This record gives sequence, C-alpha cells and structure tokens, in this order.
Amino acid sequence: LLRRQMKLPFRKPLILVTNDDGIYAPGIKALVEVALQFGEVLVVAPDTGQSGMGHAITISNILRLREIDYLPNVKAYSCTGTPVDCVKLAIYKVLQKKPDLLLSGINHGANHSINVIYSGTMSAAVEGALEGIPSLGFSLLDYSHHADMEPAKVFAHKIIKNALIKGMPKDICLNVNIPKANISAIKGIKVCRQAKGNWEDNFEVRTDPHQRNYYWLTGEFKNEDKGEDTDVYALENNFVSVVPVQYDLTAHHAIAAINDWDYE
Amino acid sequence: LLRRQMKLPFRKPLILVTNDDGIYAPGIKALVEVALQFGEVLVVAPDTGQSGMGHAITISNILRLREIDYLPNVKAYSCTGTPVDCVKLAIYKVLQKKPDLLLSGINHGANHSINVIYSGTMSAAVEGALEGIPSLGFSLLDYSHHADMEPAKVFAHKIIKNALIKGMPKDICLNVNIPKANISAIKGIKVCRQAKGNWEDNFEVRTDPHQRNYYWLTGEFKNEDKGEDTDVYALENNFVSVVPVQYDLTAHHAIAAINDWDYE
Repeated sequence: LLRRQMKLPFRKPLILVTNDDGIYAPGIKALVEVALQFGEVLVVAPDTGQSGMGHAITISNILRLREIDYLPNVKAYSCTGTPVDCVKLAIYKVLQKKPDLLLSGINHGANHSINVIYSGTMSAAVEGALEGIPSLGFSLLDYSHHADMEPAKVFAHKIIKNALIKGMPKDICLNVNIPKANISAIKGIKVCRQAKGNWEDNFEVRTDPHQRNYYWLTGEFKNEDKGEDTDVYALENNFVSVVPVQYDLTAHHAIAAINDWDYE
Repeated sequence: LLRRQMKLPFRKPLILVTNDDGIYAPGIKALVEVALQFGEVLVVAPDTGQSGMGHAITISNILRLREIDYLPNVKAYSCTGTPVDCVKLAIYKVLQKKPDLLLSGINHGANHSINVIYSGTMSAAVEGALEGIPSLGFSLLDYSHHADMEPAKVFAHKIIKNALIKGMPKDICLNVNIPKANISAIKGIKVCRQAKGNWEDNFEVRTDPHQRNYYWLTGEFKNEDKGEDTDVYALENNFVSVVPVQYDLTAHHAIAAINDWDYE
C-alpha cells in the first residue's frame, strides 16, 4: 500500500535526515533509526550545535561537507553550515535531486509556540516544504544528552507512516513535539495551532578580563494563550503536539486594512 | 492629529532603527533620516553585514554593544549579533522598554517573495511584531553601496506616516520593497501577497590551497507565480510593494487534513 500511494513502485523512499544539535547528537541517531524502517537514509547535518539559527543561510562564508562513518547502510555528511545550508547542500550537491521525505531532529528541547521561528530544526523542515518535499520536524521536551528517545521514536514512527501513506498537504511541514514522559503516560497525538507564547528575554551582563561588558541572552518562557487547541496546552496535558507549519508569511487577512491607508 | 491618535500627547514617538547590512550601510542612514522627521531615534544595528541570517539569535556565544558616533541627536550602538539580537538588546537592555515603532532597513537588495524568510532585515521587523511593536521593513531593489535612496525615502515616509496615524493591525509587520527607478517612474504603492517564487540554489565548488573542496552558495531567482496580486508583479511594474507579514506560522487550513490521519 505504502509504495503504491507514494507512486514509488520500484524503490524504497529516499529520506534525508538533518537536525540543529549537530550530527553527533543522540536525537538525530534516534530519528535515523526510525527512518531506516521506511527507506534509504542520507544524513547531512551540522558539525556542531546550531540551535537558534532559525532560517539562516551562509552567504558570506564558505561551506564544507565531510563524509563521516555513521551507521551501517547510512551515508552521512557533516556540514560547517546551518541546518538550512545542510538541506540545500543535500539536495543540490550530495543528491542532486529531491528526497522523498525530509526529517529534522529529534531536537533536544522543545520547539513549540512562537519559538518555531528561532528553531534550526524547524527551519530545516520549512526549507524542505518550500522545496516541495514532505517534511517533518521532531522535538523532545528534554534537553538532556541522555534523554530517553524511545517514546519519541514510537510517535515519530506513527506520524512518518501517515505522512508517507496519506501524503502531506501542499506547502506545509509538520512541527511535532513530544512530552518528556514514559510511553505509558503519553495520552496520544493532538493536531494543534502554535500557542501565542514566547520568551520574555533578558540579558545577563558580565565583565571580561579586560574590564569590558558583554551579554548573554537569557529569559523566561511566558504563555498567556489560554486556548485549549494549542501545542503548549497539548504538551502540558501529556499529548504529542502536531502543528502544520507554512512558509507563506503573508498575513492575507490584513491586506484589506492596509489597502485602506492613504498614500497621497 | 498624529500624537492624539497615538495617545502620546506629551512626547514624540520613540523609534528603533536596525538593519542587516550593518550600521555603516547607507541604507540605514537614509532610514534614520526619515525616522527623525517623526520622532526620537535610537539605532541598534549589527557591526558587520548579517544578510541571510533570517531569524537567528545568538545563544552559544556572547554579545557586545558599542556606543558609536552617528548623526546629531541620534543615540547609536553597534552590536556583534544578528538583527534579531539587535532588537532584543535594544528593547531589554538599552531602552528597557518597548519603542513606539521599529524600522528595519533600508536593505541594499530585494526581500520579496519567499525570500522574506531568509532576510535579517525582515526578521528584525517580525521580532518587533511579536513583541507587539508596530514594525516595518524596507528594501530597495539595488545592491549598490551607491544606490539612490531618495525614492525609497519618499515612500518610506508615506508608509510610516500611515502606520503612525492609522495604526498597524495586530500581530503583523510590513515588508516594503521599492523598485530601482527614478521617483517619477514609480507608479505608486500596491498592497500584495508574497509571490511563490524562490531561489533555485546551486553551489560553486572550489579547491583550497590545501587541495580540499569547499562550497559557495549561488543560485538563480525563479518565479513561477503568475498572480497579479504578488509583490514580484508589483515591483516588475514599477510599484512599491507592501506585504503584511505574520509571525504565526500555523497552517490553520491544514489542521483538518492532518486530523484525519490514523495514529493507531
């Protein structure tokens, strides 16, 4: 059924896997293991952590790719660039064609609410969507390097299977967040909108050994969105949240109001 | 009228100006000159070019701010971070309050169509919007350091005046692109949606002095969107394009389809 629906009768789907925590993070290894249950896997991922890089691309500097030993039957390259650079290099240089599916993650830490806009993990998935590739980003609400990836793997498998069999709607990707909980405590999957919650930023001022100030970005997550249809609400109630994410940033509903302005 | 509508009877609006070409670019100076016609101006902008940084923030490195001499009556700081870092530092460290208006640009080069997602200029405006600040980004379709900024200044003035008097719709910012043309050749302002056009990427491979390959991102802009309501169409026909841009990335229209998936 799967191959017929995908119109790929003669071969397994080709799956590109990337992330923003870097190619040596446990989260991407977990996602590769899930991907191998569905098809051929290529990994192109940053050589170091690229959290918070959003949709950044490298245009004023060079990029390098390095083939590395990874898992059996998995071709893998580390890249000096951002997650979006990785997707572009994978498509236009390594594969020279588009993969059938793009998976990003599993991110060590949440990417819910407005934070999707800062997320390298999700920007890689958005880049896939704008290239017309079915793309899914996964994040686990556990920053630990030793986080238990098993529940996330189970739910990633369920969602990837649907993406392959049912097909993704056009021009979107999925943002999947998995709560930090035992598999038996996770109640299921909820399709949501992103909560209108964000970090209230702050900066910690420090003084360097040369008596000059510098700053570290800090902050506290605030969610004033009381909606029960949001990703934050789903996660707080131990559901996996799935938010369809679009790359068209036009606020179509606001065009009429701006058209009423007087430009004379 | 202006101050009454803004409910700011006792003081001029406080305007934060930033960009992604760096604080020494001619484009931001032109925008500061326009801003000074409306209120008090603070500049916090990157110390070097940050094109293509999208919504990146600096979380794994330190940030520095340096007060610099700029124009008379304009407090100005250069920042080592991205455009979004500049906005955060301006609000949470320099001002310790939100400005009445945020202006980003004038970018040297276009930020139309899907490219808004890669743009540091527009990401600064989007960051303003998600902080609840009326925010506008401006880009001129001329990469030259010596570009004629006068037509862009005239149209920026018209649009900023409307944003102050009529007020911005909630949760959006504006993406304004100005064609490369004499003021007399520009036909007016069109409120648009972003075109579904993007760069078809490519990479140029080079060999370093140590015989190792490296890559430069290159590419060609392709627009297959034939709509006459797009920013690309407006600009091709010598109109200034204004696209309302939202930070909510939820593809609300796709929630129903994903809800039909089978997660058993």
